[in-house]
Amino acid sequence: MTIPFSAALSQIGPDSDVVVTSRVRIARNISGFPFICRASNAVRLEIMRVVKRAVDRPALSSPSDRGLQWIDLQAVPSRERVLLAERHLVSRHFANSEGPRALALSHDEHASVMVNEEDHLRIQYLCAGSRLPDAFAAAFALECGLAETTQFAFHSRWGYLTACPTNVGSGIRLSAMLHLPAVQIMGEVERIKRAARELHLAVRGYYGEGSESAGDFFQFSNQQTLGSSEDALLADFHGNVLPRLISYERDARAAALERHRNRLEDLVFRARANLSAARLLTAATATRDLSRMRLGAVLGMLPINLARLQRLLLQVQPAHLSMVDPRAADGEEVEREVRATFVRQELAQSSTDQE
Amino acid sequence: MTIPFSAALSQIGPDSDVVVTSRVRIARNISGFPFICRASNAVRLEIMRVVKRAVDRPALSSPSDRGLQWIDLQAVPSRERVLLAERHLVSRHFANSEGPRALALSHDEHASVMVNEEDHLRIQYLCAGSRLPDAFAAAFALECGLAETTQFAFHSRWGYLTACPTNVGSGIRLSAMLHLPAVQIMGEVERIKRAARELHLAVRGYYGEGSESAGDFFQFSNQQTLGSSEDALLADFHGNVLPRLISYERDARAAALERHRNRLEDLVFRARANLSAARLLTAATATRDLSRMRLGAVLGMLPINLARLQRLLLQVQPAHLSMVDPRAADGEEVEREVRATFVRQELAQSSTDQE
Repeated sequence: MTIPFSAALSQIGPDSDVVVTSRVRIARNISGFPFICRASNAVRLEIMRVVKRAVDRPALSSPSDRGLQWIDLQAVPSRERVLLAERHLVSRHFANSEGPRALALSHDEHASVMVNEEDHLRIQYLCAGSRLPDAFAAAFALECGLAETTQFAFHSRWGYLTACPTNVGSGIRLSAMLHLPAVQIMGEVERIKRAARELHLAVRGYYGEGSESAGDFFQFSNQQTLGSSEDALLADFHGNVLPRLISYERDARAAALERHRNRLEDLVFRARANLSAARLLTAATATRDLSRMRLGAVLGMLPINLARLQRLLLQVQPAHLSMVDPRAADGEEVEREVRATFVRQELAQSSTDQE
Repeated sequence: MTIPFSAALSQIGPDSDVVVTSRVRIARNISGFPFICRASNAVRLEIMRVVKRAVDRPALSSPSDRGLQWIDLQAVPSRERVLLAERHLVSRHFANSEGPRALALSHDEHASVMVNEEDHLRIQYLCAGSRLPDAFAAAFALECGLAETTQFAFHSRWGYLTACPTNVGSGIRLSAMLHLPAVQIMGEVERIKRAARELHLAVRGYYGEGSESAGDFFQFSNQQTLGSSEDALLADFHGNVLPRLISYERDARAAALERHRNRLEDLVFRARANLSAARLLTAATATRDLSRMRLGAVLGMLPINLARLQRLLLQVQPAHLSMVDPRAADGEEVEREVRATFVRQELAQSSTDQE
């Protein structure tokens, strides 16, 4: 299997100074099959057959697209499954679990379907910047295509049925990965988290549920799926919630620039210096310092383009790093050495970047 | 008062890769006066008169020397007293205490006499590198010169009498400031401290008694003053103890280079990068990173000369920094800013150093 390089995570989109990615995920289950937690392997294989048939229909592929690639997770080595998780195409749990399960993935890696995760299908559309309406339209186009040959479990009163009650109803989750370094610097993370909870949002770390925030990246998503129409959810999240969160960060940047310019410069220039000098580098330190460089780039302090930094943020993760240099898989010390060497070389090249 | 730039702390001497400075200190009290803890201000002023008379005698000055400069500590602003403490010419306690007290200081700052510290006189000779026999000879030459006009309190059985019983006898303390970064990296500081205690040595931090070690600098000194001749003390300390301590560090460096070369390089290159990039710098961080650069310099990793680093280690201390730029005294944030700017400029100049 050759997985093309993730487009969504290394592109730049609207409001990319704050919004790294937008994501729409739709949970669906096929009528007549038990939920995954109660499904035997035979049932799971049958679900995979049904979904693969739907995925493979030519009608599903747009002309510009080359259809969805089918990846049988059981047939794929652990490293490549981790790679998919690092790209936010599967959950960590899904990558590491067992049993028949698959991922259908578009060539550009924007669209994907996890098969046999918590629900039978988790349809996802992921793209760079603040583009939730586009992601929403694309995800529902895929859902409609799949629904033509597949009957999804639906209850006239509750809506779409899902394994976890929190997803019942529309089964939709809208989310945005935000980069909030200035909110962090100004000590306002707890305040923004509190505000998010009041807006019925979940706040998660870089790798979703249960993960720590790394490099000041935070994922915000709706918690409500029942009782609101999909369109109302989208209108509120994209038109109201997201602009407020973006403003928080931009205001914090302005305040930090005005009141603590030298602290900002100190963080940004030390981060670049550290990454350019290190001989050993953990993923956590690399992520932290690349995050600070990202802030420096959007504030015009560093002449490095954002797309390169986004790509680097991905490439310093363990499975991606061992794609760059297979020795990275030879143990912790070698991994750190390989990471440091790689980052030094990339930053040396970045000196030709024009922002 | 203009204090010339400390020579002892910015020169290089024998075994300077490990031994930063050698110091001999002799405690003496004048016969017929009470110890300082029981002396009135009138008595302390009288002691100062006696010592100043002895210090001012032309016979005391060698032709190459211009005699000892007399500094009345009560007449000197706090910042300059702290400056003297940063140069290890007076104790922090002596700098900050009150009452009539003075420092007699040679032009090159190698020789000095604290008057009215814990004892009436604390005669000191401080020089760069491992030169305890020279320091010993110089300190005793000064002591002899002073004894010509001053009768020191002496007991036929106990030897020289001192305010603290730990100094009774010879009243001499031999000490060496060692730079032990590899011992620190290899996790052997506790082992070397234990070994030092078994050799009846006291181990102290960068600023002597009660201070923390900063930048892996440790001060070792004899604890025994009673029952050994001065010559035997010196022979043991210089000929036996010090070479063993030096070997500890050199062996640790060799082991670290062989087994953890990339960890060493990581520390050294990050330290330089951090100091070259920082916009805000505390004295503690500057000391830590300059110490790592010192290790890099002696291992040939960095083309910067040791004398410049020694001088920088001194100049980043608060009182010295405000000599470089008086704004450093305007508050913590400005001080950090001034320090960062100063260090960046110095390191930019160091690129022309030939080691």
